[in-house]
Amino acid sequence: MKAAIITIGDEILIGQIVDTNSAWIARKLTHAGFEIEEMQSIGDDSRQIKATIDEVFARVDVILMTGGLGPTKDDITKKTLCDYFGSRLVFDGSVLENIRNAISGFTSLNELTRNQAYVPEDCTVIQNRVGTAPIIWFDHIGKVLASMPGVPHEMRYAMDNEIIPRLQAKYDPDAYLKHIFIVKGYTESALAMFIADFENNLPEGFGLAYLPSPGLVKLRLFARGGRRLPELNEQVKKLRDILGDAILAEKDIPVEQLLGERLFEKGLTLGTAESCTGGNIAHMITSIPGSSRYFKGSVISYANEEKENILHVARESLDCFGAVSEVVAIEMAKGAQKVLNVDCTIATTGIAGPDGGTEDKPVGTVWICTTYKDKCVAKKYQSGKFREANIVRATNNGMLQLLEMIEI
Amino acid sequence: MKAAIITIGDEILIGQIVDTNSAWIARKLTHAGFEIEEMQSIGDDSRQIKATIDEVFARVDVILMTGGLGPTKDDITKKTLCDYFGSRLVFDGSVLENIRNAISGFTSLNELTRNQAYVPEDCTVIQNRVGTAPIIWFDHIGKVLASMPGVPHEMRYAMDNEIIPRLQAKYDPDAYLKHIFIVKGYTESALAMFIADFENNLPEGFGLAYLPSPGLVKLRLFARGGRRLPELNEQVKKLRDILGDAILAEKDIPVEQLLGERLFEKGLTLGTAESCTGGNIAHMITSIPGSSRYFKGSVISYANEEKENILHVARESLDCFGAVSEVVAIEMAKGAQKVLNVDCTIATTGIAGPDGGTEDKPVGTVWICTTYKDKCVAKKYQSGKFREANIVRATNNGMLQLLEMIEI
Repeated sequence: MKAAIITIGDEILIGQIVDTNSAWIARKLTHAGFEIEEMQSIGDDSRQIKATIDEVFARVDVILMTGGLGPTKDDITKKTLCDYFGSRLVFDGSVLENIRNAISGFTSLNELTRNQAYVPEDCTVIQNRVGTAPIIWFDHIGKVLASMPGVPHEMRYAMDNEIIPRLQAKYDPDAYLKHIFIVKGYTESALAMFIADFENNLPEGFGLAYLPSPGLVKLRLFARGGRRLPELNEQVKKLRDILGDAILAEKDIPVEQLLGERLFEKGLTLGTAESCTGGNIAHMITSIPGSSRYFKGSVISYANEEKENILHVARESLDCFGAVSEVVAIEMAKGAQKVLNVDCTIATTGIAGPDGGTEDKPVGTVWICTTYKDKCVAKKYQSGKFREANIVRATNNGMLQLLEMIEI
Repeated sequence: MKAAIITIGDEILIGQIVDTNSAWIARKLTHAGFEIEEMQSIGDDSRQIKATIDEVFARVDVILMTGGLGPTKDDITKKTLCDYFGSRLVFDGSVLENIRNAISGFTSLNELTRNQAYVPEDCTVIQNRVGTAPIIWFDHIGKVLASMPGVPHEMRYAMDNEIIPRLQAKYDPDAYLKHIFIVKGYTESALAMFIADFENNLPEGFGLAYLPSPGLVKLRLFARGGRRLPELNEQVKKLRDILGDAILAEKDIPVEQLLGERLFEKGLTLGTAESCTGGNIAHMITSIPGSSRYFKGSVISYANEEKENILHVARESLDCFGAVSEVVAIEMAKGAQKVLNVDCTIATTGIAGPDGGTEDKPVGTVWICTTYKDKCVAKKYQSGKFREANIVRATNNGMLQLLEMIEI
């Protein structure tokens, strides 16, 4: 079953926003057993939208579209699809009812919002439970075109609760089988060399994909077709034996969730003391629902004054060794453990860049200290010149360092 | 002058990575006066690459490609372009010299890397000063196809230093004119209704685009052609008069940067006290380079214990009103102002979800208190059921609320 993703919006073509929706949709479709043939981004232009649908429908079974469903003049997707499928816009009372629910408490109904209740006569209308623009689904010569809002959380809700279940019911695609290993202690190329024999001897139709991130590699072993499950299980067992202790987990979850699960299982509480990561570790940890069961809080001590006053880092340590040092990282982590009254802490201090580097401590230098009850580990990490990448790297490394500590 | 961007790589089609290159290229091309007709992402598949070039060249003058230029066997772009243009690969000594320079100090030359010095005979080879894969430029019946590495910093270097200057020299395109207004206090549809007359009377060839986010709308007024600048200025003046106080800024930057600039201009310092946003406000603020000039730190008081012990929220307030209340929000903000020794604070307390809601305080209820010296404002916000969206919304609303306070 082949699918294509089409994103509509001039703001994408001028580079004002990065299209993150397509990758998210692609991941969901792939897991549901569909093969993505292509992704396209085109403008708010009726002629172009129609021509693109014609071209793409010749190659795929399913087209998922996002964007251009808003209430303003530049949003023309609904009208264009109506023309394309020879339909006309009619008023739908149930959509208006849903719109009223969606905006109640927020704002009142105006004319433009009310107009969103006009939908093509010959389509399946799917209510948008988290927004005002309805989702539109056309069945067309055995193929499907579904149009969703471009607002990411509205699109995600529609995909998970409506689009994926309906597509699976309609097409029952060959299952996409996969098994994930989260592997630590190897770079991507070192891991590829270590398991080269295994990879070269995989059965026909099996594949192995590497997704590296700082400090770990996600390995995806995959095949298509439910009947191949026994073979997959056999290969999983083989790879598990080869990887041994390097396996951190066998599920496709982010590190912040993995750490959260381990903390919760062990009944441990967590806090962070962040300088160069500026709250990103706390943000990642609390992005997981239920994190209040183990996460108690953080001190973001961006300025030295906060390191001293709240975390009780010694003035002498800051003066002698500088804020980016092993001693200060340790004092931050231990200070946070006391002040937040938690079992475990992650403390970061470093130079995120682009400025602030010195010869001794170039941009990208980060000290991370983790504590687990009375144990304490401090390590120095060196990464590159890019602020955003440095923050993400230090966030990941901090969580992995603690994870390793509590595993033992 | 029309252009298209084509990204090559299976990892994009399964959603394993988000394509950020295309938006970056689009922004540069747009500013250079080119109109982006479309963006496509396709697989590492020779047949598909050729068919896509055929289709796209029928519509545009310039194709910029990224991806598939690496040294391993899944990288097939160079060979495919060679076939497409009826050329053959020949060894180029100057490319090998550049490769040697690029890797010196890092690693030694191996066979796979050496093979990158083979290039199509009938093309312009552009040296990659920051990597090993050469950039390849084909002139073809008055049109251009240039292929760049997908590694972001290599692509960016090539675009800025080679591709854009060469394209401008060849085509001398008309400028893309735009003006951005960041507008507060309106939903997208309310704003559209408010400025409908203005929008309906725009000169031929002018356009207006809406990009909404929680609490604000970015309005982009645009036209093509340097000679239309006086007309654009006239329309900008008209729209500025209509929007009046609703204008938050007239530049295309994120709220966290806008807030940072205003704080810095006024010589104010900032700290946050975050419960439901879990550090995301601090994270957004510190994502801006130079934020240490105004941001001092935060207390992420996820648990009530931290609200009491570090921020000195009264036990009675927590008991009587609950953690999600006006009183607690105010005490958090004032406590943080003292403990962090800052001029301004943003405090958030709410129910991010999916669990934890009650009839009185459903999921999505958020109290935000901002302080600015001895002033203090507390407001209740109600948003939806989705954790991620609620965190983002509260983050934005908190920054906007403070921005409004310090503007007065």
